[in-house]
Amino acid sequence: MRIPLDRDSAVPIYRQIEAFLRHEMRAGALAPETRLPATRELAASLGVNRLTVTTAYADLEAEGLIYSRQGSGTYVAPQPASLPAQGDPAHADWPLWQQELLSRTWSPAMREMDRLNAAADRPGMISFAGGIGDARLFHTDEFRKTLQHVVRRDGIDAFGYGDRAGYAPLRATIAQVMTGQGIPTHPDQVLITAGSQQAVALVAQLLLRPGDTALVESPTYSGAIDIFRSQDIRLRGIPVDEHGMQVEHVEDALQASRPRLIYTIPNFHNPTGTCMSTARRRQLVRLAVRYNVPILEDDFVGDLRYDGHDLPALKALDPGGYVMYVGTVSKMLAPGLRLGFVVAAGPVYDRLLASKRVNDLSTSSLLQRALEAYVSVGRYQAHLRRTCQLYRRRRDALVDALQRHLPADARCIPPQGGLFAWLQLPAGISALELHPLAAEEGVTYSPGGFFFPAERDQSFARLNFVMREPAEIEEGVRRLGRAIERSLKQRSTAGIPVRQQPITV
Amino acid sequence: MRIPLDRDSAVPIYRQIEAFLRHEMRAGALAPETRLPATRELAASLGVNRLTVTTAYADLEAEGLIYSRQGSGTYVAPQPASLPAQGDPAHADWPLWQQELLSRTWSPAMREMDRLNAAADRPGMISFAGGIGDARLFHTDEFRKTLQHVVRRDGIDAFGYGDRAGYAPLRATIAQVMTGQGIPTHPDQVLITAGSQQAVALVAQLLLRPGDTALVESPTYSGAIDIFRSQDIRLRGIPVDEHGMQVEHVEDALQASRPRLIYTIPNFHNPTGTCMSTARRRQLVRLAVRYNVPILEDDFVGDLRYDGHDLPALKALDPGGYVMYVGTVSKMLAPGLRLGFVVAAGPVYDRLLASKRVNDLSTSSLLQRALEAYVSVGRYQAHLRRTCQLYRRRRDALVDALQRHLPADARCIPPQGGLFAWLQLPAGISALELHPLAAEEGVTYSPGGFFFPAERDQSFARLNFVMREPAEIEEGVRRLGRAIERSLKQRSTAGIPVRQQPITV
Repeated sequence: MRIPLDRDSAVPIYRQIEAFLRHEMRAGALAPETRLPATRELAASLGVNRLTVTTAYADLEAEGLIYSRQGSGTYVAPQPASLPAQGDPAHADWPLWQQELLSRTWSPAMREMDRLNAAADRPGMISFAGGIGDARLFHTDEFRKTLQHVVRRDGIDAFGYGDRAGYAPLRATIAQVMTGQGIPTHPDQVLITAGSQQAVALVAQLLLRPGDTALVESPTYSGAIDIFRSQDIRLRGIPVDEHGMQVEHVEDALQASRPRLIYTIPNFHNPTGTCMSTARRRQLVRLAVRYNVPILEDDFVGDLRYDGHDLPALKALDPGGYVMYVGTVSKMLAPGLRLGFVVAAGPVYDRLLASKRVNDLSTSSLLQRALEAYVSVGRYQAHLRRTCQLYRRRRDALVDALQRHLPADARCIPPQGGLFAWLQLPAGISALELHPLAAEEGVTYSPGGFFFPAERDQSFARLNFVMREPAEIEEGVRRLGRAIERSLKQRSTAGIPVRQQPITV
Repeated sequence: MRIPLDRDSAVPIYRQIEAFLRHEMRAGALAPETRLPATRELAASLGVNRLTVTTAYADLEAEGLIYSRQGSGTYVAPQPASLPAQGDPAHADWPLWQQELLSRTWSPAMREMDRLNAAADRPGMISFAGGIGDARLFHTDEFRKTLQHVVRRDGIDAFGYGDRAGYAPLRATIAQVMTGQGIPTHPDQVLITAGSQQAVALVAQLLLRPGDTALVESPTYSGAIDIFRSQDIRLRGIPVDEHGMQVEHVEDALQASRPRLIYTIPNFHNPTGTCMSTARRRQLVRLAVRYNVPILEDDFVGDLRYDGHDLPALKALDPGGYVMYVGTVSKMLAPGLRLGFVVAAGPVYDRLLASKRVNDLSTSSLLQRALEAYVSVGRYQAHLRRTCQLYRRRRDALVDALQRHLPADARCIPPQGGLFAWLQLPAGISALELHPLAAEEGVTYSPGGFFFPAERDQSFARLNFVMREPAEIEEGVRRLGRAIERSLKQRSTAGIPVRQQPITV
């Protein structure tokens, strides 16, 4: 126990020890029934006479704050109710620099969404919120056995820093999978990261400086907006339709804003679920080359296709070194694995590796080894097939239910894969205002406003359709329909005109 | 397999497929004996006629690039030597933005050191390099059992995002340990990070902007220098003596440079092994309060004390909200666990949590749960005692060997704990120039220059004394002595005067 002692102080040492322990107990930091160090031990550690500690303990025992058990030691007493609890941090007189920080920083959109949905959470709620896959499909018992196997096989090597770029056999597996998907990849172009979130954050940190501009889809992934905002990056949004980013607006934006990065989610876009057409993909890469702007391609669920045929990755269209490709296993297997990767060619790869190292040295070698052992035995492909079958049915259930239970002017383009459907609510209904009504009916979703890089358009809701069985999905949409009906009624009662607006995604 | 096809192109689709596969094989991305997708499967995935794929395969087979096995499928042929290997990335014509990046970024000091020592690494080498503890002391088999237990107990919960601040029981354990060390801590003030490296990076990212100044010890931890440099932070170094940072120089620096952060390693300082005196600790906290500057206290091995008595943490002297405290279990248990933490009070805590989330969402829940289960059964304390006993003997062996095998004007203040001793080499010898000579003799170390925030003083070597048994330590120092002798001889032969210089740490 390190107790700060001031040997020059007029306050005797034993009093300083008492004051310290008293403060710790009041602050709740020394819990009732905690065993205190033996007097001999504490005295030695503090470099004081043992009598000093004995005196302090005796005083505290007299106050009823601690007690001694014969032959067992000294313990913190059950705390009397009269002791004040830990002060409310909000009321404390925090340093000026902390107050300045409050005015300078903000709450990420991801957290705002979480809070909204956490507040709505209660038994029986059907949630279309959240941005992950159905983790119940992950075979924890198989993975447990894989962990066993890896620790037995690799011993202490599984607990070292390992290769800073990532466990080499895992990089080889990823390169093989990528190549099989039409993106010729060498293992030395793969950098393992703590999920795709870190991959995007590293690219932004490396390539952008405060005040720079990035081009993004509007709407786009809220977590990417948060990354850019946290680094004081300006965002220029390019609208999205059913064929993805409207690339025909990109050239104007490139000329006007001189962005230093294009961030895009071409497959099963978050939040709209759309795919960028092949023609637009080609055009976007051509523009990136012409204007010397790197593209960051976030392919977070590119594997999860239920209909239609595969489209070429931007990375596969890259004439050389323009496209960085981000992928993840968090969405497909389990988010808590925190394993993603970025594929990059050219000098930028080495710089990303250096950034990764500066940020957190390396990603857990144990989890990388376990994932490699788990995936290499063909489990990933089987898991993918099974997942696609299940998710396809859930997607179908959602699309079907939306048609049956929502008013005719609610619109949704059926997604061909991924996790999300993007619902345009009936004219005049705000997804944010609808949210508490929906929660009352027993259904939640992610209000669309959080996904816009600039002005928050509240006429959309993002529905994650992969977390529930078809019957629950239908019931959820039925509840959503009831909430919309109530909202429409409230509006007409209040005399607010139900505005007609053009339908876009 | 996603093959980019341009349906508007004058080049027939089957030719496009051929060109793509040919390119993949040449790039080494489609390795020999790789099984290609069946024609029916590939045709369906690309949305083309099966005959198109059959034609492409037939052409490639005629070229000898692929071959089919009856009833088994089509495979990449063993690659003929005439095909060019993957191009050297250094020779490629990378985009302009990548070339610009090269001129703007740099190689972290940590990597320069690694490269130096990796180049020297060979069988029989005795290494005093590296910044970690002896991982052989970690009980991998016990930890394996703990992993089993946790996955069985928690199932899929162990693989979710979990509490973004960190697994609550682990935060409670850390708070308890901290409190026991005289730093009253509430679990809600603990944020789990991917090692202490990430904790320092998050604080820097949150509190500093490019062009800001941070006060650091000179020398200081190379990984922290890398963090600050990567964020374009200016560093002002405060010299260190045997009682740690010379705090008497801090007030001038605060007035002259208006730093926005003070970063310090008060216990068993990296690289010098010194501890900041209690008087200086009090003075530093007083100055931080007076000048409204936050302190980041990096206590990476504060537990590893072999002599003397504990000194109060700066955090324990904090009147409220000025000191953020960073700790880690990576050094004590296994670096690959990548688990560290930061303790902060006040609004800054919530902002750090938001930053953590933006950077990588959360830290692996599985590893946090396993660590909590592992530590809570008292293993940590036992491990600490055993580690201190072993390391103390190694420290003694080093100090003893330095006295016996090095010239009298080599100086080293015996460290009272931690991992490192800071060796001042005999006058006129550069640790960087000595390094290859030492490697020839069979010993390596970390040249001291890498630890300086500004001008690199090359007259010191950092010796990590915890990785080897006493007998090896003695042999390593003997080799170092021989290298120094050779270096001195070379210098006198070359007629370079052996300069006398004042001895400081």
